[in-house]
Amino acid sequence: MIKYELEKRPGRPLYESLYEALRRDILSGRLAAGTRLPPKREMASDNDISLTTVINAYQQLIMEGYIINEERRGYFVAGIKAMPKMPGRRPEEEKEYYQEEEWFADFCANNTLYRYFPFTAWKKVVREVLSDYEMELVVRGNPFGLEALREQIADYLYRARGISVSPACIIIGAGIEYLYARLITLFPPATIYAVENPGYLKIPQIYASYHLRWKEIEMEEGGISMEDLRVKDVVITHVSPDHHYPLGTIMPADRRQELLAWAEEYEERYIIEDDYDCEFRYNSKPIPALKSLDAHGKVIYMNTFSKTVSPALRISYMVLPEQLLKRYISRMHFFTNSTSSLEQYALARFIGNGHFERHLNKIRKYYRQEGEQLLRALRANDSIPIQSISGGDSGTHLLVKLNTELNDRDVKRRAAALGVNISCLSDFCIRANRKYDHTLVLNYSDLDEETQREAIRRIGTVFRQA
Amino acid sequence: MIKYELEKRPGRPLYESLYEALRRDILSGRLAAGTRLPPKREMASDNDISLTTVINAYQQLIMEGYIINEERRGYFVAGIKAMPKMPGRRPEEEKEYYQEEEWFADFCANNTLYRYFPFTAWKKVVREVLSDYEMELVVRGNPFGLEALREQIADYLYRARGISVSPACIIIGAGIEYLYARLITLFPPATIYAVENPGYLKIPQIYASYHLRWKEIEMEEGGISMEDLRVKDVVITHVSPDHHYPLGTIMPADRRQELLAWAEEYEERYIIEDDYDCEFRYNSKPIPALKSLDAHGKVIYMNTFSKTVSPALRISYMVLPEQLLKRYISRMHFFTNSTSSLEQYALARFIGNGHFERHLNKIRKYYRQEGEQLLRALRANDSIPIQSISGGDSGTHLLVKLNTELNDRDVKRRAAALGVNISCLSDFCIRANRKYDHTLVLNYSDLDEETQREAIRRIGTVFRQA
Repeated sequence: MIKYELEKRPGRPLYESLYEALRRDILSGRLAAGTRLPPKREMASDNDISLTTVINAYQQLIMEGYIINEERRGYFVAGIKAMPKMPGRRPEEEKEYYQEEEWFADFCANNTLYRYFPFTAWKKVVREVLSDYEMELVVRGNPFGLEALREQIADYLYRARGISVSPACIIIGAGIEYLYARLITLFPPATIYAVENPGYLKIPQIYASYHLRWKEIEMEEGGISMEDLRVKDVVITHVSPDHHYPLGTIMPADRRQELLAWAEEYEERYIIEDDYDCEFRYNSKPIPALKSLDAHGKVIYMNTFSKTVSPALRISYMVLPEQLLKRYISRMHFFTNSTSSLEQYALARFIGNGHFERHLNKIRKYYRQEGEQLLRALRANDSIPIQSISGGDSGTHLLVKLNTELNDRDVKRRAAALGVNISCLSDFCIRANRKYDHTLVLNYSDLDEETQREAIRRIGTVFRQA
Repeated sequence: MIKYELEKRPGRPLYESLYEALRRDILSGRLAAGTRLPPKREMASDNDISLTTVINAYQQLIMEGYIINEERRGYFVAGIKAMPKMPGRRPEEEKEYYQEEEWFADFCANNTLYRYFPFTAWKKVVREVLSDYEMELVVRGNPFGLEALREQIADYLYRARGISVSPACIIIGAGIEYLYARLITLFPPATIYAVENPGYLKIPQIYASYHLRWKEIEMEEGGISMEDLRVKDVVITHVSPDHHYPLGTIMPADRRQELLAWAEEYEERYIIEDDYDCEFRYNSKPIPALKSLDAHGKVIYMNTFSKTVSPALRISYMVLPEQLLKRYISRMHFFTNSTSSLEQYALARFIGNGHFERHLNKIRKYYRQEGEQLLRALRANDSIPIQSISGGDSGTHLLVKLNTELNDRDVKRRAAALGVNISCLSDFCIRANRKYDHTLVLNYSDLDEETQREAIRRIGTVFRQA
């Protein structure tokens, strides 16, 4: 006889309690494999429940394979082999697997200027979109991204970056990292990717994480070394012609043409133009994108709204040359939209009615001021052995070349002990090169003037200890 | 002498016109490499513009590398090698690279029941989030996904799927495809992945697109073949124990235990539980997830809100075992958030105040009705040579086994000619197997009853032609 204390719980059928009690006993081994369960009527009267309750519970257990109904012989516990200990309820006290570090000042964080976000304008367009659309907000989005947004991007690229491109060539995705994960599926497995050295190390990390082959190419004064590119026999090369990170180099016109000519030599060669902070040029007009010179479809253009609007939106985009676009479409069956339709509509409106470019003008002004402020704080400090400072004309970081015996590791360690997180040019090197030693990379980090000055003062004490 | 008709355009400095004119002439070759430009004062007086205008234009051209300032000698056009033809303005008439097919009825589309979307409730929570939050909506989101949402998901998994898991193990991402692209970076390159045959072909396509090794494992009545799994020496296996697609198999308790035991034999073995439509079980209570039996951290659980809420949100999630979670965190430096913060907050609220489960109950009812309606339409039609029909108890598709000489290709072709898109079980086979021939896979496709009946009538005529 099997008898349970079956709890009556509001809104839950009683058979679930019986099912759970039996299942628990089967899983724990209390009801061993092969055990014959009481016939339905007996089970019902023993537990003072209806026959239907037993039938429903047995049905569910049969469906899930815990018991077997052998015709004319009855119900038997199934031969379940392994019986792992069942995990308990979710623990109240949860493990913390991941915790962000907290700094007094973090010059490694490339923070967006959140303080100047146009909340009123943004919320207004989101509310408008919520009122104006309905079904469009929930049906599966266009796998390339919403047309309205791609049209706004195409117009913006023409206005701001000198790029003539059809919206049909633009693909919107949830971040540059995501677009990369899609892009690499368009190339054969043996493809060798080139990354700049020094450079933005996330790029080789992405290649490595997908087990792809990559080589580092030396940077020269005029941008990526053409000689190294040829010697290393790479196929796809990643560059930031507008503003190299972290060197700040602008690739000059002749190197741009050489690079395009290099890509044109073989069909499989392409250039990835990472135009990550083209919007931040302060003392001159913007430099047209490399893509604007791309007459033969060799440039894959990438950009994001993470820094110009917000990284919480997750809207980035790439422009594919026709050849690659066709390849992309032929694999479309497994690409889906990856960004929220609501926010794509909102962003399209935000660009369309001029908010985006007004916001850009505003933050460009603040970034410039922040750079000047950082420069002043550095110049005013006489403990840091500054040899030269570069940057400030564009982008959102300064390079500070030092006259010091201290090695980079010690400089960072001492600053960190004072709550200041900094990186050095050597952190961006794949292959070490002494010419890049003793240079701080200071990202503007949306710090108020006082915090910034105090952070610089603390960096200064690093050298007084030497 | 160089003289241009320089246009005065409102809101644009005149130097830009001079810069553009010179740049155009350099790129076109009209001003050849090495040409000496007129001195600044001469250029100014020839063009009747100020000296500052010329200085600014020359500065910009120097910065971009189009001209060189040789001290005491003057300004020269740089040695730019290749000169590709500049692309023109963006063409008014745009190429259509991609067009979706239009069908009278598409039984391949696994459409969400958009008609029953709770627009009022959803818009209300989005508006509330817009009012209640500000900075939270624009700062970079937690790379794992918003905590508020992960907590709601953990609670939901406990309530609905019997899974006890800390929110710290949940990772939110922009779609299952995206989470896959991240997941595979956690395993060594030589890992062999197992996919079910027949099965959801998008999974091997994802593996193939990242150049990974995969093998197909035969399906048996009781789920994936354990023997085949061992013979083929695979490491990671993808299963849908709750409801195999498209066979509809529920993996019984003993096979679940065997599969877990298989994974426990070696550290590197894992099971990916794709719980894609666990919410759609109509005539019995839900079957607890395989993950709920996972005492040793061998199951990676994946699910999405695409079908239960909307594919326009792009919110999916995976639950990582502790071991993999640590590996994930150690690579965190290049993983960022991939879903909109606004919609994550909104979804957390939508689940938290019961909208989600109410909506589930509602669409569960409609899906069930749609299945019954499709079943009736099939049974009422006497032209389709039906041998048997399965499905309808769960999920959103029916399998229709046919008594026909017509091969699957011809059936599909004839139906397509009548505007009806269908797939056959053989379309889901990696390795053909005659036992899967002559079986239609009909997804419920959010069709009204009349359209559905007409579509079934058209399928019927396919066999009358035979």
